[in-house]
Amino acid sequence: MELKSEPQTFREYLKSNKVLFDQTIMRFLPQTIKTKEIQLLYDMMRDYPSRGGKGLRGSLCLLWCELFSGKKNDALVTASALEIFQNWILIHDDIEDGSDMRRGLPALHKKFGVELAINTGDALHGKMWELLLTNRTIVGTEATLGVLFEFARMLNETTEGQHMDLSWSLQNDWNIDEPDYLLMVTKKAAWYTCITPCRLGLLISQNVEKEENLSKLMDQIVDFGTHLGIAFQIVDDVLNLTADETKYGKEILGDLYEGKRTVMLIHLLRKISGDQRKRVIESLSKPRPAKSAEEMNWIYDLMKNSGSIEYARRLAAKHSTSAMEIFDEIAAKQSDLHPRIYAQTRNLLEYLTSRDY
Amino acid sequence: MELKSEPQTFREYLKSNKVLFDQTIMRFLPQTIKTKEIQLLYDMMRDYPSRGGKGLRGSLCLLWCELFSGKKNDALVTASALEIFQNWILIHDDIEDGSDMRRGLPALHKKFGVELAINTGDALHGKMWELLLTNRTIVGTEATLGVLFEFARMLNETTEGQHMDLSWSLQNDWNIDEPDYLLMVTKKAAWYTCITPCRLGLLISQNVEKEENLSKLMDQIVDFGTHLGIAFQIVDDVLNLTADETKYGKEILGDLYEGKRTVMLIHLLRKISGDQRKRVIESLSKPRPAKSAEEMNWIYDLMKNSGSIEYARRLAAKHSTSAMEIFDEIAAKQSDLHPRIYAQTRNLLEYLTSRDY
Repeated sequence: MELKSEPQTFREYLKSNKVLFDQTIMRFLPQTIKTKEIQLLYDMMRDYPSRGGKGLRGSLCLLWCELFSGKKNDALVTASALEIFQNWILIHDDIEDGSDMRRGLPALHKKFGVELAINTGDALHGKMWELLLTNRTIVGTEATLGVLFEFARMLNETTEGQHMDLSWSLQNDWNIDEPDYLLMVTKKAAWYTCITPCRLGLLISQNVEKEENLSKLMDQIVDFGTHLGIAFQIVDDVLNLTADETKYGKEILGDLYEGKRTVMLIHLLRKISGDQRKRVIESLSKPRPAKSAEEMNWIYDLMKNSGSIEYARRLAAKHSTSAMEIFDEIAAKQSDLHPRIYAQTRNLLEYLTSRDY
Repeated sequence: MELKSEPQTFREYLKSNKVLFDQTIMRFLPQTIKTKEIQLLYDMMRDYPSRGGKGLRGSLCLLWCELFSGKKNDALVTASALEIFQNWILIHDDIEDGSDMRRGLPALHKKFGVELAINTGDALHGKMWELLLTNRTIVGTEATLGVLFEFARMLNETTEGQHMDLSWSLQNDWNIDEPDYLLMVTKKAAWYTCITPCRLGLLISQNVEKEENLSKLMDQIVDFGTHLGIAFQIVDDVLNLTADETKYGKEILGDLYEGKRTVMLIHLLRKISGDQRKRVIESLSKPRPAKSAEEMNWIYDLMKNSGSIEYARRLAAKHSTSAMEIFDEIAAKQSDLHPRIYAQTRNLLEYLTSRDY
């Protein structure tokens, strides 16, 4: 792969896409509103999208469109709508998960109250569909409706996954086995982070003529994206324990304070028993302010000593390998595959499953 | 109008429509889910739609489709989606407004917690778009996309209106004049209760051939629905003060306990001054549990003595008359208008603006 870009170049590529998404979103969301009482609503809608983020989902969508010889520009509105999706759902998730911070700043409901933040999430959600309807003049009626179906499916999977995750927390349920966890992660993370972005790119390329082939590819992407999404989420969870805090930008061990179910924790709870297991569960079940750094570090040490982190890394690597195999299978069938696009997509996939912050 | 149906018949007509909406919605939302953790999500999605309600918005949509010689069946999916819209937005509104009860039962977030309720609202919102996408095989691609645009617009107006209303409450702002209030009500209530249902019916009829005529009618409906929606909301607010509690099903004077901005209150605050005005505002600004029945009844008596309720009734009647005039103007141009449909629509409009519970 001579054309494989260097990490620096790849980051620049991501950044240049992010600029395009930001422009599309910011032009679409009015900045100045005549009715002064409504101005704040639009300021709130523009808040999360202005806070940065990497634009990974949008980039995945653009690249998969190009992989199938589609035009990058055709996918821009859809990719930006994916970024809007992430932003409005994060507004609601932050309330549901009780998260105080988002991208280094107070969460929206911490700044403006839960009432206005829920409504802003809904308003931004509505704007997402409105933006998607502008696709009509870009990709035509057929692809526009296909894209809308994909978004409806993505939202269905994501809310089911969020429901599972929230239910476990609210019921203080720690008897979760790995298949339960993997189903939750597939629904909550893999669909909107991996599966749907890639399916959208393929749809928008409009370069697969036979309905039968398209449908087969769409199914393969579900398989591919499930593995990719699981690997992505496990890597993300491992980073939460092990990352360099200055680079990571989030609170280290934050997931333990939040009592989040992860592969490491499920592994640990399988490895320990009796009083020790009881003490771990008691510690994790405490309300966040009652948790001490000492306790959380103790659980982290237990995880290290029980091989839970190594286990999670291996599981992530296994899913990552499966994803890459399916990806190469799909790519091998593309006769007019552009080497640069192939290399950039592979870089992105590798970044998603092996990043260190 | 020989065919004008009797009140009883009209209520039966509404009920029969409601049965159709319920069937459409309940068939669309799966009842049994394989993954046991997700079962509760679907039970929660089906909760508000199972609680009754009159189906006014859906009926308005069906009637306006028939007014323009469209088929009632063609509008059924869209009318049911309007009912889903009302249900998911009520789930979120009940949290935002701090309402404990909905249709005689505890609000969804009171039964299952705010976290799951927000997510359920989002899930039901997603299902609304999914249902609307099934329109394709019923009304074709063009009308399907047109309907989606209408829903996006409706959601935009509704969230803007809710933002205005919430902001006033959160900022404890009582310096609201009537035009502010009417703008808020138009956005928060008139669009989703009146304007959009009628525009959707017209769109689905697909019986206005000239683009120019369609666009003119759509504008007239905005004008008509604004008057109708304002009249509807004022009548609703007056009922909250004056209705027969056994029929009404909600708490009488509940709006005063909630500190809700209404025409009566704006009128009262204009009529009184000095210490009296200060005392009224102080009473209304208290948190709900701190408000006494004595205080609320005192404010209600002030409203009666200041002519605020009479003023509101007159204002509602004025807007109702304007709505009826525009309606008759629109109807007069329909050469193939069916007398039964005309009568039923007029009955519904009159019911909306003069009901006593």
